[in-house]
Amino acid sequence: MRLYRELLEETKDAVGDTMGVIARFAVDEMMGSEGLEWESEGREALEMLAELPDMWDVNVSDWANDSMTSRFAPEGYQEEYVRFVKQVTSKPVSTVGRYTSPDAMVSAIRNGIVDLIGAARPSIADPFLPRKIEEGRPEDIRECIGCNICVAWDMLSAPIRCTQNPTMSEEWRKGWHPEQIAEKASESHILVVGSGPAGLEATHQLGKRGYQVTLAEARGELGGRVTRESRLPGLAAWARVRDYRLGQIQTMVNVETFLESELTAEQVLEFGADHLCLATGATWRQDGVGRANRSPIQGMSRNTVLSPDDIMDGKRPAMGPVVIFDDDHYYFGSVIAELLSAEGFSVTIVTPESIVADWTQYTLEQCHIEKRMKQAGIAILTRRNVVRVSAGEVVVLNALTDQEEVLPGSIVAITMRLPNDHLYNDLMALGNAVQEAGIKSVRRIGDCYGPSLIASANYEGHRYARELDTEVDIDAVPFKREHHKLELA
Amino acid sequence: MRLYRELLEETKDAVGDTMGVIARFAVDEMMGSEGLEWESEGREALEMLAELPDMWDVNVSDWANDSMTSRFAPEGYQEEYVRFVKQVTSKPVSTVGRYTSPDAMVSAIRNGIVDLIGAARPSIADPFLPRKIEEGRPEDIRECIGCNICVAWDMLSAPIRCTQNPTMSEEWRKGWHPEQIAEKASESHILVVGSGPAGLEATHQLGKRGYQVTLAEARGELGGRVTRESRLPGLAAWARVRDYRLGQIQTMVNVETFLESELTAEQVLEFGADHLCLATGATWRQDGVGRANRSPIQGMSRNTVLSPDDIMDGKRPAMGPVVIFDDDHYYFGSVIAELLSAEGFSVTIVTPESIVADWTQYTLEQCHIEKRMKQAGIAILTRRNVVRVSAGEVVVLNALTDQEEVLPGSIVAITMRLPNDHLYNDLMALGNAVQEAGIKSVRRIGDCYGPSLIASANYEGHRYARELDTEVDIDAVPFKREHHKLELA
Repeated sequence: MRLYRELLEETKDAVGDTMGVIARFAVDEMMGSEGLEWESEGREALEMLAELPDMWDVNVSDWANDSMTSRFAPEGYQEEYVRFVKQVTSKPVSTVGRYTSPDAMVSAIRNGIVDLIGAARPSIADPFLPRKIEEGRPEDIRECIGCNICVAWDMLSAPIRCTQNPTMSEEWRKGWHPEQIAEKASESHILVVGSGPAGLEATHQLGKRGYQVTLAEARGELGGRVTRESRLPGLAAWARVRDYRLGQIQTMVNVETFLESELTAEQVLEFGADHLCLATGATWRQDGVGRANRSPIQGMSRNTVLSPDDIMDGKRPAMGPVVIFDDDHYYFGSVIAELLSAEGFSVTIVTPESIVADWTQYTLEQCHIEKRMKQAGIAILTRRNVVRVSAGEVVVLNALTDQEEVLPGSIVAITMRLPNDHLYNDLMALGNAVQEAGIKSVRRIGDCYGPSLIASANYEGHRYARELDTEVDIDAVPFKREHHKLELA
Repeated sequence: MRLYRELLEETKDAVGDTMGVIARFAVDEMMGSEGLEWESEGREALEMLAELPDMWDVNVSDWANDSMTSRFAPEGYQEEYVRFVKQVTSKPVSTVGRYTSPDAMVSAIRNGIVDLIGAARPSIADPFLPRKIEEGRPEDIRECIGCNICVAWDMLSAPIRCTQNPTMSEEWRKGWHPEQIAEKASESHILVVGSGPAGLEATHQLGKRGYQVTLAEARGELGGRVTRESRLPGLAAWARVRDYRLGQIQTMVNVETFLESELTAEQVLEFGADHLCLATGATWRQDGVGRANRSPIQGMSRNTVLSPDDIMDGKRPAMGPVVIFDDDHYYFGSVIAELLSAEGFSVTIVTPESIVADWTQYTLEQCHIEKRMKQAGIAILTRRNVVRVSAGEVVVLNALTDQEEVLPGSIVAITMRLPNDHLYNDLMALGNAVQEAGIKSVRRIGDCYGPSLIASANYEGHRYARELDTEVDIDAVPFKREHHKLELA
């Protein structure tokens, strides 16, 4: 307390009246009695320092508690911890806690919980969020879905990516303005095949440029994997990736959308577009090939294994024990485990990694996931690879003991995806007929080119629209770099 | 194979006779039949490409197999995998595999296994290794101890550190030449108290500068923690940190060394040195305080808990089950587990982290450690914190289930260390008497200032010697920085 107080006092002395001094303070360390708690020492600390800074910025710590994903916490989830602060200080108070919607922000201020809202992730998803509120057009906000892909890329010491905002980190490097895009450079008509995140963003930005765009979707609903995955436990907010773009597209007279329109190569040629943008997605493998296995696993096939696609299609294993083989390590394993466990299945997650959902350490979710699995009674077997599947049995190899273990039950395997590139291959097989039909370019984007994150698909959709009719050399280094000169100090 | 071949061929075409082309190829992926194996496909691949490059650089993969530590593999451990290569190509062949000593290097070449030796880590430990061999002074080589601290700092995206070579990464930033140091700037006499890695390196470099140095060691042997820890299973090579420096010091007439010379503050004053360099090390806590616990654990005291110091002093728990509480996460937990297990104790490691020896992921050792624990029959309980110790019982809290579990047995706790700073505090308590005794400076270095890695202690010893009698402002940014000017491309 003395250190914090003196730091504040000396900072105020040093800056005088040239600027205000804002103090951030975590009023609860979320460690129970081992750390600060807002009802006791957290509050006492605030009371002792109450009038010292010019403004308070209060939250909970550490980062994994401060930056919860939408899967694990609702909007404004820090309110219960920080609402006392305005009672103990006359200074303005701000907080954070994934406020993504103007409604929740306004409500926190109207209810007197805080005076200002801090929102880093929502500003990554939409840097023009404050202006859009000011201008009375909340429907134009790209609302943060709370997935923490931004955090993950930060953790990886790489330029930040965002599932909602594909221009993030590319403002200078590529000159991508989050709200502005060049007008069309031709009168081309573009056929976008597939309305998942890649196809939707390509359509959105092509439409914004003024091109005539036709979006053809094979299924009866738009959104592709975003729509399907948003129905899984905890992922409802992910549908915002679709909803923002549908909201934008629906006002565009130059964009038309067709459902239940699976196209053959011949139909594509007949359609008469100038450019083809294929965004046909990917399909989960059912043969076991993935990170831990380079060749198919004995006994694994579409007759014996359910994939995430099957689960999303409503298929279920036989009632009884289910082994979820997670060789993907992101969210799917635990999300499907939650789903099946809630439906009454007895679930075991098998992973070749040393912890469940290993990659979610980057999104700060791993510990929350592991806790939720334990609470649901889901068993976790780490460092196990599946070696054989037979009727009602999954045989795994324990990498530490080199012993095989037999687990009774059906198997759901989350391994890797293969591009849905039949349409592309069929078109290529037609040879010159494609050019003769007047088609100037055929490009694959998103999962049908390389299965990856939703953020990547969105990025590729955006990039496609940005680069159409431009001189960008897609084989060159596609962004500006800083050039350093060394000067000896 | 076609990709690799074409890459080689096109590279050779592109460079013509302006340079040689060396190809690196991992002949064994250490994945059994799931990957390349040197006896089968690895050899076949080499045979097919044998005469294409101008030279071959062969090894095993991945990095954790290629860069084994001394704890898990001997010098030249890749020879069995790569020795066939010279039989299938007429081109020169090199390999790696932690060749640290000239003897092993020469032996590999004389036995016709390879023509050249690659040695990254040994060159980090001593960039002048080749010259020292050439000049016939192998005794001057700072031989790599194979600890992978260099790898760890690389993983952490930070300037590389080396346990043997404190100048690593500081050649430009601080102007520290690995072999050269400024001559003394005064006729001062320096008393170094403590001969662990910090004290030894300070003595070594002060001696090299030409100062009169007295090194006083409380125990009956030199080397401090390095000597003690090198007796633990697998850590024998770590004694090289001591041996290199003793070898250098023994030729210096201006350095004298005293064993069994624990000094009181009064004796230090009487000694009459101009500068005091305190390197008195640190002692492991026995009250449980550490990363996971901010206050002492109920029932933990020097009567109920053995620390790593106790184990190194030869103390042992009562025969029967032993719980090792590892809140340190580096090597100590598993090394002591190995030791006690080999002595017949039934050992369980308890860690608050999600995997055993979590930090050793940075040194590429974690998987090897976990395997060795399993092979030795040592049980591993993760995500558990110790909450209470009583006679013959250790009570742990499972962070995932929030349930307490009772483990029978004695406890060895590896939590954190406290500086041995009694001598420093006693000197400070004497006030002006220190200056009046003619002592111009008193400084603590290494573990007695801040308990950390051996590499850090060595670094601080080096830094002390470099900075004595210089104008370096130790409170300023103590190294040169690159200054960037941004030029738009």
